[in-house]
Amino acid sequence: MDYSDASMCLHKERQGKLEVVPTVALETRDDLSVAYTPGVAAPCLAIAKDPELARELTIKGRTVAVVTDGSAVLGLGNIGPEAALPVMEGKAILFKKFAGLDAFPICLATQQPDEIVETVKRIAPGFGAIHLEDIAAPACFAIEERLIRELSIPVMHDDQHGTAVVILAGLLNALKVVGKELAGVRIVISGAGAAGLASGRLLWDAGARHIAMVDSQGLIAEGRGGMNAYKDVFARQTNPEGRQGTLTDALRSADVFIGVSKAGLLTADLVATMAPQAVVFAMANPVPEIMPDEARQGGAAVVASGRSDFPNQVNNVLAFPGMFLGVLEGRLSRFTPGMRLAAARALADLVPEPAADRILPSILEPGVSRVVADAVKVTA
Amino acid sequence: MDYSDASMCLHKERQGKLEVVPTVALETRDDLSVAYTPGVAAPCLAIAKDPELARELTIKGRTVAVVTDGSAVLGLGNIGPEAALPVMEGKAILFKKFAGLDAFPICLATQQPDEIVETVKRIAPGFGAIHLEDIAAPACFAIEERLIRELSIPVMHDDQHGTAVVILAGLLNALKVVGKELAGVRIVISGAGAAGLASGRLLWDAGARHIAMVDSQGLIAEGRGGMNAYKDVFARQTNPEGRQGTLTDALRSADVFIGVSKAGLLTADLVATMAPQAVVFAMANPVPEIMPDEARQGGAAVVASGRSDFPNQVNNVLAFPGMFLGVLEGRLSRFTPGMRLAAARALADLVPEPAADRILPSILEPGVSRVVADAVKVTA
Repeated sequence: MDYSDASMCLHKERQGKLEVVPTVALETRDDLSVAYTPGVAAPCLAIAKDPELARELTIKGRTVAVVTDGSAVLGLGNIGPEAALPVMEGKAILFKKFAGLDAFPICLATQQPDEIVETVKRIAPGFGAIHLEDIAAPACFAIEERLIRELSIPVMHDDQHGTAVVILAGLLNALKVVGKELAGVRIVISGAGAAGLASGRLLWDAGARHIAMVDSQGLIAEGRGGMNAYKDVFARQTNPEGRQGTLTDALRSADVFIGVSKAGLLTADLVATMAPQAVVFAMANPVPEIMPDEARQGGAAVVASGRSDFPNQVNNVLAFPGMFLGVLEGRLSRFTPGMRLAAARALADLVPEPAADRILPSILEPGVSRVVADAVKVTA
Repeated sequence: MDYSDASMCLHKERQGKLEVVPTVALETRDDLSVAYTPGVAAPCLAIAKDPELARELTIKGRTVAVVTDGSAVLGLGNIGPEAALPVMEGKAILFKKFAGLDAFPICLATQQPDEIVETVKRIAPGFGAIHLEDIAAPACFAIEERLIRELSIPVMHDDQHGTAVVILAGLLNALKVVGKELAGVRIVISGAGAAGLASGRLLWDAGARHIAMVDSQGLIAEGRGGMNAYKDVFARQTNPEGRQGTLTDALRSADVFIGVSKAGLLTADLVATMAPQAVVFAMANPVPEIMPDEARQGGAAVVASGRSDFPNQVNNVLAFPGMFLGVLEGRLSRFTPGMRLAAARALADLVPEPAADRILPSILEPGVSRVVADAVKVTA
């Protein structure tokens, strides 16, 4: 199936992928008087008296803004807010399909972090939570941090935390398959952007202690060129001796490769230099760091990718709908690292007997988001 | 029927009044690959090359932002953005019901005109048009003017122009009933806010030449206290001699009263001082300037109000869904006074034989928005 052609046809035929529909009757004069004026004055006045009632009397309590500046859309780069809209619409309908939440795309005509923060704060009253999407690193880190601090509703940058949660979930099960412990394995993360840094932090929080993060210039290390404040913090934590080196150096005898970087970066020969029973997550999108077949030829015991046409798809949609459902149902004001750990463990536990070709549930299995949501709520 | 109680129950039971639903299948892995990654990259790249394609491949071409700052909600005043949400949701579902358009509420956490303009401009990429709602005068005038100038999509403040269009439509037919000409009648407009000034301007554009506008301090006149730049312009046009006076003075022998002001301002005794065959539009909401029965007791020949429980309801929903449908279908970049005149005349023509208790169509009659949309498109 040619997904590109089919997608163009679908988008053209439907003029996008979502619609906004009434959930109330509007057939008679009485219907209009209840849903709109004069009846509507009653809920308005109730909320004016107690703004918390907005969560009960309006869509706020179940509605998520899917916000982007179009600066890092899929693997397509900085294509701008209009061109990002098909992805944001996609995100919005995944919220409905997998968590019953209502989400709406907001595509911003600015890529200035201060302006993005300011704008999201100004539109926040009508939303129960903010889902940041496809905003380039390192700006995404400061934007998310400030919004979490300055808003009283939950904010999550999915490219960071949605990805990190599913990676951790998959890795927990992959390690069961190969009989290794998270605390003992040597992990190489290729990519030090949004997904790489957030995954590195979450793996650390989960107990991993040997993490080498590599970007396009090699192992990240304080004082090296091409660093930023976020890489510095992570390098201090995971590479205190300031070792330097290439991806090739780092991979030698490593147990786990986690790629959130670039198509074709990894070869079967390089995989062969890893430890026995190696785990390879090659998640560059749509073309992975190494094709799953090749990774297996190089000796990898468990292979995962971002693709739906191979086993072990690492797909954010396993995490974000349930995570937002959890915070909204629980009326929580923010996401925490503890919730992310709980969500990852709950996802992993959905596969009671992990195998090399089954380390994650499929999003099409019923109840995935429910389990994630409950894990988030219980943790809070 | 107690609309307040019914409305509270409805809002609580449904947690608001709208939902965001997919218009595409999401049942299989292939469905996901077409609607989302990897297929979605194709429409993204097409739009990146030609941003105009966003109107064909995304919801942009049929989606309206319903924007408020909560500063002048219904007749309830400055109740803020959360409390405004039930009204904005109502507006959004009226768009769907009566024009098939998708609209989403955006409630802003700022009441600074510059910040409102800036914020709307920043969220504009995902929308095909901007519907401003319940923003207090006189700030609403400058906000709308700037957005029209600085955005390339249509922007309309409904409290101004939606109201003005329906008032003009109703008045055209009311004057047929009483056998008078617009150019000759003496019109008193009570209220010099958003609705009053926009209606005054549109009546002038339609050919009315004797318009006395009265605010809480009496007849507007340059140099009088309590004026602003917008009242000044209108006073120069309609009251060049700078006459001053009270509402009572202005009403003596007037042919038409148009109230967009305050409950109970008008009495049957005052109506009795107007010319024979007087027309009274008392549209303060939810309690009019004078109850329709009372106005008739005072001698008015045609009476209209904003209420659904009396004949001749002047209801913006007769105008705004069709007007937005027209500019979106026609891919027009702005609303013009000519379109407003055309919309009003088309609405009036929907009642071929106006009578004292039937000067406007009911919004529940099929095809009203279609007729308005076509009038807007033909004018452009």
